[in-house]
Parts: sequence; C-alpha cells; structure tokens
Amino acid sequence: MEKPRCAGFRFSGIAAGIKKKGGKDLGLIVSEVPASVAGVFTRNRIQAAPVLLDRHRIRTGRCQAVIVNSGNANCCTGDAGLRDAEAMCRRAAEALGISEELVCVASTGVIGQPMPIETVLAAVPELAGALSSEGLDDFAEAIMTTDLVPKVVTVQGEIDETPYTVTGVAKGSGMIRPDMATMLCFVVTDLSVPPKILQESLVAGVDRSFNRITVDGDTSTNDTVLLMAGGRSGATIETPEALAAFQRHLDQVLTGLARMVVKDGEGATKLVDISVVGAASEGDARQVADTVAHSNLVKTALFGEDANWGRIIAAAGRSGVPVVPDAIDIRFDDVTMCRNGMSCGPEAESAATAVLKKNEYRITIDLHMGPASASVLTCDFSIDYVKINADYRS
Amino acid sequence: MEKPRCAGFRFSGIAAGIKKKGGKDLGLIVSEVPASVAGVFTRNRIQAAPVLLDRHRIRTGRCQAVIVNSGNANCCTGDAGLRDAEAMCRRAAEALGISEELVCVASTGVIGQPMPIETVLAAVPELAGALSSEGLDDFAEAIMTTDLVPKVVTVQGEIDETPYTVTGVAKGSGMIRPDMATMLCFVVTDLSVPPKILQESLVAGVDRSFNRITVDGDTSTNDTVLLMAGGRSGATIETPEALAAFQRHLDQVLTGLARMVVKDGEGATKLVDISVVGAASEGDARQVADTVAHSNLVKTALFGEDANWGRIIAAAGRSGVPVVPDAIDIRFDDVTMCRNGMSCGPEAESAATAVLKKNEYRITIDLHMGPASASVLTCDFSIDYVKINADYRS
Repeated sequence: MEKPRCAGFRFSGIAAGIKKKGGKDLGLIVSEVPASVAGVFTRNRIQAAPVLLDRHRIRTGRCQAVIVNSGNANCCTGDAGLRDAEAMCRRAAEALGISEELVCVASTGVIGQPMPIETVLAAVPELAGALSSEGLDDFAEAIMTTDLVPKVVTVQGEIDETPYTVTGVAKGSGMIRPDMATMLCFVVTDLSVPPKILQESLVAGVDRSFNRITVDGDTSTNDTVLLMAGGRSGATIETPEALAAFQRHLDQVLTGLARMVVKDGEGATKLVDISVVGAASEGDARQVADTVAHSNLVKTALFGEDANWGRIIAAAGRSGVPVVPDAIDIRFDDVTMCRNGMSCGPEAESAATAVLKKNEYRITIDLHMGPASASVLTCDFSIDYVKINADYRS
Repeated sequence: MEKPRCAGFRFSGIAAGIKKKGGKDLGLIVSEVPASVAGVFTRNRIQAAPVLLDRHRIRTGRCQAVIVNSGNANCCTGDAGLRDAEAMCRRAAEALGISEELVCVASTGVIGQPMPIETVLAAVPELAGALSSEGLDDFAEAIMTTDLVPKVVTVQGEIDETPYTVTGVAKGSGMIRPDMATMLCFVVTDLSVPPKILQESLVAGVDRSFNRITVDGDTSTNDTVLLMAGGRSGATIETPEALAAFQRHLDQVLTGLARMVVKDGEGATKLVDISVVGAASEGDARQVADTVAHSNLVKTALFGEDANWGRIIAAAGRSGVPVVPDAIDIRFDDVTMCRNGMSCGPEAESAATAVLKKNEYRITIDLHMGPASASVLTCDFSIDYVKINADYRS
C-alpha cells in the first residue's frame, strides 16, 4: 500500500525511551510553512498541561509543528508540567529553526507522574532528523498507548481540477466517551483554509464523529484534535460548494478514524452501531443511544453474543427520555427481536443470535414517538478490557 | 445463630421449578393481620408487571402478604404478564384465605420471557404450607439470582420498654445503581405504624441506603422495596423520639442490606466507600461521588489493586461539577496520595497500594470548595463481572 502523503507536511516517530516497555513514543508533524490551525479539546475540568498550552497557542490561528509523546500524559503535574510542555515546544522549534509560538504539543499515557523531560528533550534532534514526507506511519505508531493498530485515514478531493489531500491520524483506546473531543487526533490538509473556517469545519466534523463514539464512558484529560491546513496543493476554498466538499472529506477522515478507535477499543471484539429512530427529538435520540451504548450490562451481553434485548430496553427506560414501553421495537440488523415492547419469540431469537456472532452489526431501537434519529458507535465489554485496565500502570 | 424472627410474620421459600438451574425460586411473606405498607419502586420507564400492580395496591396502605419469584422478571410481557402477576396474588390469597387485594407480588430474573405461570401457581399450596416464623432464611434464598449469599439484617429496639424488631431481606446483585429504589427488598416490623408515616420513613431510609450504592450503573425494571408494619409487638409510635428511634433502626436495616448488596455485587472482590468532602453543596458532592463510583476505569483499577488516582481525579473532572484541579486532595483510607491535584510521590504510593490490598476501604476526595459531603458505596469491576454477564441467559 502506498504510504499516505499530504503535500507540504513531514512526519516522524522514534523510540525516545519514555514508555517502560519500549517502542516508539515520540512523534513530530511539521508543515513547511506556518499552517492555519483549528483545535478541539477535552471538556474534562482536569486538563493536561499540553491541552492548556495548545488552547492558548492556537488562538493565533497559526501552527507549524506538533510534537507528541506517548507513555506519560503530563497531567496533574502542576507548574513543572507546564514548563515541561513549553520546553518540548521550544526544543522542537530550535531543531526546526522556527518560532516556538508556532509549535503545539500533545501527550498521552499515565496521569499524575512527572514527565521524564530530559529523556524527551535529548531525543528531539533525532526526531527532527527523521522527518520525512513518508513518515506518517512512524508517527501513528509513536502516539499509540493501548492501541493494537495504528489509525490513519487519507481522503483525496479536488477543487477546480486541483487535487488536494486530507490525512488524519488518531490514537485511542481507553478513556473514550462521546460529547467531547476525544483522544488524540491530528489532521493535515494541503488545502488553503482560513483559521476561522477551519475551526467551524472541525467542530462540525468532531460532533459527527468523535462525539458519537464510546469505549468505556470515561473522558480523558488529554483529548486533543488538531487540524492544520498548509495550502501546498494550491487549492483554495472560494465557493460554498468547495467548502461543502472539504467538510465532506474532513468528515470522512474523522468518522473513519472514530470508527477505528472504537473497533480497537480496549479489549473490544465487536463494533456495534446503536441507532435510535422514531424519537421526538435528536436530543432524545442521542440520550437513549448514549445510555444503551454505555450500559455495562448491554456491552457484556454483546461480548457474550447474547441477544439480551431486555437489557437494551431497560437501559432505554433509564435514559431519562420518557419512552413508551409498549411502543418500542428493537432490531439486530434486519431481525426484529422485540415488537411493541415484547419478545418476538424463539425463532427471532435464533436469527438475532446469528447477527450477534458477526464482528460488526447495528442495533436499531425504534421508539415510535417522532421523526428524529441518532446513532452512537460502541464496542463490547470483554474480559480483556478488565485485564488491560486492572494492570495498566504495572 | 438464632434465626431472625419478627412477631406476627411468617415466611417460606421453596423450589417451584422456575429457575433453569434448580434451587429455591418462590417465596412468601405473610402477616397474621393486614399490615400497614409502604413501597418504593424503580424509576426506570420500563417497569415490570408486578411493579405496576404493587404501585396500585399499596395505595390502600394495607398489605397482608407478598409472593415473590426469582428466575423470571415478568417484565416486557404485556397484558399476559399483568394477568400472571394478578394470578399469583389471587392464588396466594386463596391459599391463605385472605382478600387478593391484600397481596403484593415481586419478580426478578430475565426480562422479556413469559412467566411459566402454571408452574408457579401449582406450587403455591406447598409454599403456603411451608410458612413458618423461622422461614426467613428460606425466603431469602428463594429470591436470589446471581447473589452468592442471602442478605438478612435484623435490628431490635424498644418503645416504653416494649421491645420491637425490624427485619429486612434483600437480593442483588446486578443492574444496581443509585438514585432509585434498587433491587428487591422486603422489610417487616412488629411495630404499629400508620401507612403515611411508614411511607415517609421508607423514602428517607432508601435515600440514605439503596440510593447510595452502585454495582454496575444499570437500573433494574423490577426494583421494589416494600415495608410492612404488623403491630404485633404492641409498641406504637406516639412521640417524635419514638419515630426517630424507629427511623434509626430502619436505616440500620436498609444501609446494612445495601452494604451487603454491594459487597455481593456481581464479581465484586472489594467494597469501597467513595467519600466526597469539601464540596460546595451536597448535590455536588453526590454528583462527583456517583461519577467516580461508576467509572469503569476506576473500578477496574480497584480490582487491579492499583492506586491509580489519576483515573479518580479524571472522573471527578468529567462529573459536571466545576471542580478546581489544583485544590483536590485524594486519600486512600488515611494515606494522602494526591495533594493540590498532584502526586505525593512513591512513598505515598506504596502506602496507598497497601490500603488497596484490603477488602474494604474508603477513598476520600476533598474538593476544598465548601462544607458539604456525600458518599456512595461501590465495588470493583472484575473479570468475573464480565463472565457472569456475558453468560447470564445461557
């Protein structure tokens, strides 16, 4: 497979010695010119030092490089943590010969431990030396924590016959819940897009992608999505049609990455789309979908390949939406298992069980209360999730 | 140990053949006279047939018997389910020679499967024949589902030198979350208490006990707490002091049972009190305690005996309460692990890890924002929780 590229951007990822278990843990993205930048960050009240710094830096609308480490979240680390985040930017700026104000930073890993900052800083020259237009896979690997696979999505479009690229890279795979920007995600494009439009596009795209997924219902302190537009393709957005096309391509990248994050959720063996239809409002639909998607009893039943629709209807019933029990239908893909709030019997159950043996499927909950709908992507809840998270720091 | 008794009440529990795996699954409580009754029920919008029936019946303030089955929840069973619930009351009334309006019913088990009603009804004469003042342990066993141990708490008090007894029995142990009456619980007393006072006492007691616990964050469709006061002791409540004493004894029974439910939570190996202090309001304190107590990442770390306070502070941060990161202290029993939002270092961590090896301990989160506090009892989240719930219906 051809390595993803985006004109005007170079990437690198190396093993700096931050992760106890070894492996790549320090990455860098650089644009050849200062790019427009947009960012969406965690809504958790506890925010890591890099999040606090980036929120401030992207206000200028300009960014030329992002340095990212895994293995330590640099969160709950006080003033020292802020100084460490700034030092990472400064050292990267020195190595690249650019202003440190043009560098953002992100960290992911354990919360509450001091950054091994000397180790990180010492590795920056090697990191800068490794930059390459084909280095995205190394970068993707360097930002992984409990992820099993790197996550990269590239989409190409064109404006007035000038081709452009949108490329995104993300990492999960725990502390993932919707209604916020979630995990780390970096998207670059060689389009030229002003910062204000870039920010609007990113917020809209995140709301349709990362805000519609859950792995375990916990929200990270380090969630960051950064989008950089370098303009190297020569294509610019000058019409509503071009903007719509860009938004569509950006959405493809974000939803593609969001899907990969859930699929690679800690311990996950199933990717399940929880679709609520027939709701009185989109808000109601999301609330029911969220509650079902987060239910531990639903998620363990998915792991057990058990068409236990009783747990699904019970979760809908506690969602806070005034659902009408006798009106609810529940389908596994095309198999209706529950109609008017009651079981469709053993034959339907056999057919539904066959659906549950698949790796990916949809559960549709029809409330029969109105025209609105919403969906949330979730995964199952496995024995491995518990193992991974009982042992995470050891 | 002497079997718990409460003057004027008899109990029984037998194997009627409802549970696939065999064992006791049908229970009966009978008062020798119509008792005052109070009830608190699930706030889930999906409510089982017995819940719908009992809500109606206890409006009279009188109840003489409760018939309870495990193995089938009689929920999402439509009109047939309501007829089955009524039939269970009617058959019990016939066997006891009392009015069917004086009989309540409760069910627990799988949702959405028809009650094996003929099996149940056929067993009622045997059930009535087995009634005994010493039968509470049989009853306690008959209402168990995934519970590993029966749960009975008895407290004795006296009013004007007349002794009285408050005895409660409960079952868990999944689909347990606070903010509602939760699971099945039956409390009897030989005190004489008018229904209105009984209801107020029960609501207050449940709010301080079952509404402060969680196992897995899911709310059952069948949650029922019934309290019957038969008056056989001869003691009556005629002063505020006597009422306060009764409330205290009732609270002891309810909190004792609530604690047993969490301790026997599905797969649980730890009983952990999440205490939030220094909050601006009790509502804030409960919101933070609830969020931490429900966090899968916190609960898996408890299972792993890992003093991962980063997950605790991250959960507090996403609770919706505007916590101040730099003000937060976190203690494991008396060991301060996090002060002013930062780690207290490796020595504190070693001491905290020793606390986490215990079976029961307290985690205190001091927000330093005000005078209010609240606590929630939770358990850890183990591999066995997933195993139990992946396989529950098979």
